[in-house]
Amino acid sequence: MQRRIDLNSDLGEGYGAWTMGEDAALLQQVSSASVACGFHAGDPGVMQRTVRMAAARGVAIGAHPALPDLQGFGRREMRVSAAEVYDLVLYQIGALGAFCRASKIPLCHVKPHGALYNMAARDAQLARAIAQAVHDYDTRLVLYGLANSALIEAGLEAGLVVANEVFADRTYQADGSLTPRTRPDALIHEVATALAQVERMIFAGEVVATDGSHVPIQADTLCLHGDGPAAVELASALRRGLEARGVAIRPVACAQAGSGEM
Amino acid sequence: MQRRIDLNSDLGEGYGAWTMGEDAALLQQVSSASVACGFHAGDPGVMQRTVRMAAARGVAIGAHPALPDLQGFGRREMRVSAAEVYDLVLYQIGALGAFCRASKIPLCHVKPHGALYNMAARDAQLARAIAQAVHDYDTRLVLYGLANSALIEAGLEAGLVVANEVFADRTYQADGSLTPRTRPDALIHEVATALAQVERMIFAGEVVATDGSHVPIQADTLCLHGDGPAAVELASALRRGLEARGVAIRPVACAQAGSGEM
Amino acid sequence: MQRRIDLNSDLGEGYGAWTMGEDAALLQQVSSASVACGFHAGDPGVMQRTVRMAAARGVAIGAHPALPDLQGFGRREMRVSAAEVYDLVLYQIGALGAFCRASKIPLCHVKPHGALYNMAARDAQLARAIAQAVHDYDTRLVLYGLANSALIEAGLEAGLVVANEVFADRTYQADGSLTPRTRPDALIHEVATALAQVERMIFAGEVVATDGSHVPIQADTLCLHGDGPAAVELASALRRGLEARGVAIRPVACAQAGSGEM
Amino acid sequence: MQRRIDLNSDLGEGYGAWTMGEDAALLQQVSSASVACGFHAGDPGVMQRTVRMAAARGVAIGAHPALPDLQGFGRREMRVSAAEVYDLVLYQIGALGAFCRASKIPLCHVKPHGALYNMAARDAQLARAIAQAVHDYDTRLVLYGLANSALIEAGLEAGLVVANEVFADRTYQADGSLTPRTRPDALIHEVATALAQVERMIFAGEVVATDGSHVPIQADTLCLHGDGPAAVELASALRRGLEARGVAIRPVACAQAGSGEM
Repeated sequence: MQRRIDLNSDLGEGYGAWTMGEDAALLQQVSSASVACGFHAGDPGVMQRTVRMAAARGVAIGAHPALPDLQGFGRREMRVSAAEVYDLVLYQIGALGAFCRASKIPLCHVKPHGALYNMAARDAQLARAIAQAVHDYDTRLVLYGLANSALIEAGLEAGLVVANEVFADRTYQADGSLTPRTRPDALIHEVATALAQVERMIFAGEVVATDGSHVPIQADTLCLHGDGPAAVELASALRRGLEARGVAIRPVACAQAGSGEM
Repeated sequence: MQRRIDLNSDLGEGYGAWTMGEDAALLQQVSSASVACGFHAGDPGVMQRTVRMAAARGVAIGAHPALPDLQGFGRREMRVSAAEVYDLVLYQIGALGAFCRASKIPLCHVKPHGALYNMAARDAQLARAIAQAVHDYDTRLVLYGLANSALIEAGLEAGLVVANEVFADRTYQADGSLTPRTRPDALIHEVATALAQVERMIFAGEVVATDGSHVPIQADTLCLHGDGPAAVELASALRRGLEARGVAIRPVACAQAGSGEM
Repeated sequence: MQRRIDLNSDLGEGYGAWTMGEDAALLQQVSSASVACGFHAGDPGVMQRTVRMAAARGVAIGAHPALPDLQGFGRREMRVSAAEVYDLVLYQIGALGAFCRASKIPLCHVKPHGALYNMAARDAQLARAIAQAVHDYDTRLVLYGLANSALIEAGLEAGLVVANEVFADRTYQADGSLTPRTRPDALIHEVATALAQVERMIFAGEVVATDGSHVPIQADTLCLHGDGPAAVELASALRRGLEARGVAIRPVACAQAGSGEM
Repeated sequence: MQRRIDLNSDLGEGYGAWTMGEDAALLQQVSSASVACGFHAGDPGVMQRTVRMAAARGVAIGAHPALPDLQGFGRREMRVSAAEVYDLVLYQIGALGAFCRASKIPLCHVKPHGALYNMAARDAQLARAIAQAVHDYDTRLVLYGLANSALIEAGLEAGLVVANEVFADRTYQADGSLTPRTRPDALIHEVATALAQVERMIFAGEVVATDGSHVPIQADTLCLHGDGPAAVELASALRRGLEARGVAIRPVACAQAGSGEM
């Protein structure tokens, strides 16, 4: 059986006159794009352009909902209730879904952004609210979450197809969580090391944690960052490396989800 | 053939801790609700509650997209391009549509709000952008616009079912436009006069303008305002009066549109 | 020596077309008004009207800065850094101060709003950031904070005049903190009990906590809520009751601060 | 008498995670900086950093207030009343002024941004509202406006020191207005031509319009754009060119205004 993985990147994170990230370059590398929905970035014009550009490249499109915090780029945790989260995720999926619909292309997945992603990784209530919103919009959508997190669990409980997201340039701790960025060993700077970590995830189903222990992990989708030329180079190197190892790069279960939206 | 008309009101115009209008009382009177989508009013929580409340009353639901101007309640005209209008209308329809979808009820119509409504009544380019956005989201949606306006024309051109909106408490000028609010004879204060104006529209297909001329007008839907107890009383009196004259109160073509959204 | 207390209320909490609270009625009762600065409520027009209305009544004016969260009315805690808090408080003081300046009336105090108030009550770093911003804008401003809180302490450290804020309709716990609203005994509903609690604070310098213990407390300013007719009645009853006991109602040290701003 | 001119640039136009323009490079060239105040760009953190950076370079600081339109970068005209404009300008001046105050540096001028600048250039009522807001905040502030525009006139009427702003890279029409960007001859692309135009303004007090006529113009301040490396090069070339001709580069009347703010 051929190994496969999805490569995803967060796109459409400009706003009005402001741009962010190397969208055009990243679209050459990824199989899936998570598109900002207006709450942390992405006004309607940016969303429209991003959806059309991704569609033109044949890249699968997902919604990238966030906390309502333009000033903080959705990175500041807020004390929101599960009901608030359900509503704001549903709103943003619908808004992005409308651009897909108008372009007659499927909406394939949902991946929470920034602080919402982190909160949903550890808070089962918020995770369930997100999974429920995704489910109530379209049961065929794929829910992206941090591998092994509460969000993945909530997605499974809700009967959704889920995608365990892994990182090439971040280290992991013994409990399977990402090493906090405040620690000196949080980041992997060597391309070769990053590629090796992902290969081990795909072929061995595990990651070597910072303490040397081997932690089981399922790699359905790999997050490629998009800020700066170095990020684009890393993305390109990872894709080439994986393809050289015979790994197929393709979206998670999208054909299925797609048929529903159109 | 029985005469019929739709009674519509703008609902869900609160935001966060702020409330606006007598939604619960108006839902007793109307057959259609145009629900704010977050740009002039209506955050995700307000939208959710409004959609559920309208659905529980069997009232048909439409999107009420606006210019991005929370501070000005969408009432200040802005110089926006047709492309910007297309994108922002599409965004808002999708956002509201998601709440309908999650509640398994149809999204029936789209009615632009405030300044956008007025701009679309006279500017053919903006009108076409709105009609196109509605069409591209769902061809079965009904487009509401000022009777005889550029928006109605654009909706027909786009192949949409349209609803000519009329007003009971506003006077009309010889060219069919509403008398500007700055003029002393802009408003009709007597309930009986308001009711008589609507009856003439429904039964005779005309309105008597401020200069005494008879202007042809088609009354598909009547706008009921919702601010203040007097507004609710007028709404109730108009409904009772129309029903007493044998006019059926029901949404415009909704069964059709509805089947599509679910 | 005559006993004295300041009565303060949060005013100007409308936004655009939305209104909130009984500002006109409350201005009859209070000696100080904390005016929203645009982040949780209060656009420039609302701020202008509120400042003028308060000035016309001779009520001392303060800034009521909040987290940037219009949708949540500044009530949702956010993970913000001390540097972010310093900047956003400074911004909001300046914005409100401009209206005072244009009206040639003093800006007298600063009282953080909602979640920011609560966070500053317990987090010394955020409290210091707020105190520093107040200090750097005008050293003569009075800093309002929950009695005995980290914010009061930070204000004193920064060399500011502080105002310990107390509540008539909330109960206190043995450690001097307010009983959380989630507990059944959090609120005092009887006017007589509320008045008695405030009198004890003023004359005895203590409050009886929910466990019966006597907790020392200094009552420099009493917060009067403004939502709903019951609130206005309570405000009026408290004022009358305090005046009947010979307590002078007046702002904290305002003449001093005022002279600086003009 | 030595010729002199102020070189100004719009700075601090990032927002949250987004950056805009080459602030650090431009601060090497200008004598004055107009700093965004949060309505079209510039959150409190960006404002703080920009004010400190400008102060460190000895560049005079002004407020750059705009219409409330983050999504449109303040470039979309809105139908706002004179009262609304007065309030929103006052708000923004105060907000920026607070950062100057905290850094103990003077606030020197006010220059409206984008659509507000253009509207104020031709609409006397809006121009007067802006001038009045500036005046009511601090009578010593310098009001920047398009040379010969309604805003300059309103500033003079209000008794303010004004600065006629001119452009090096834009052509002028016979009536003294800028050639609209929609016309092919709107822009000057050659550095030498741009420099020559400014020199003629400074030394001859006139500009040669697109139809060849000579139009009187007073050049108090020259606007240097900041987007892109070409803009920074042009800025640098203009400064060097002017200095080579013996023109002194310095702010308009700032020492005076400054003493008031501190």
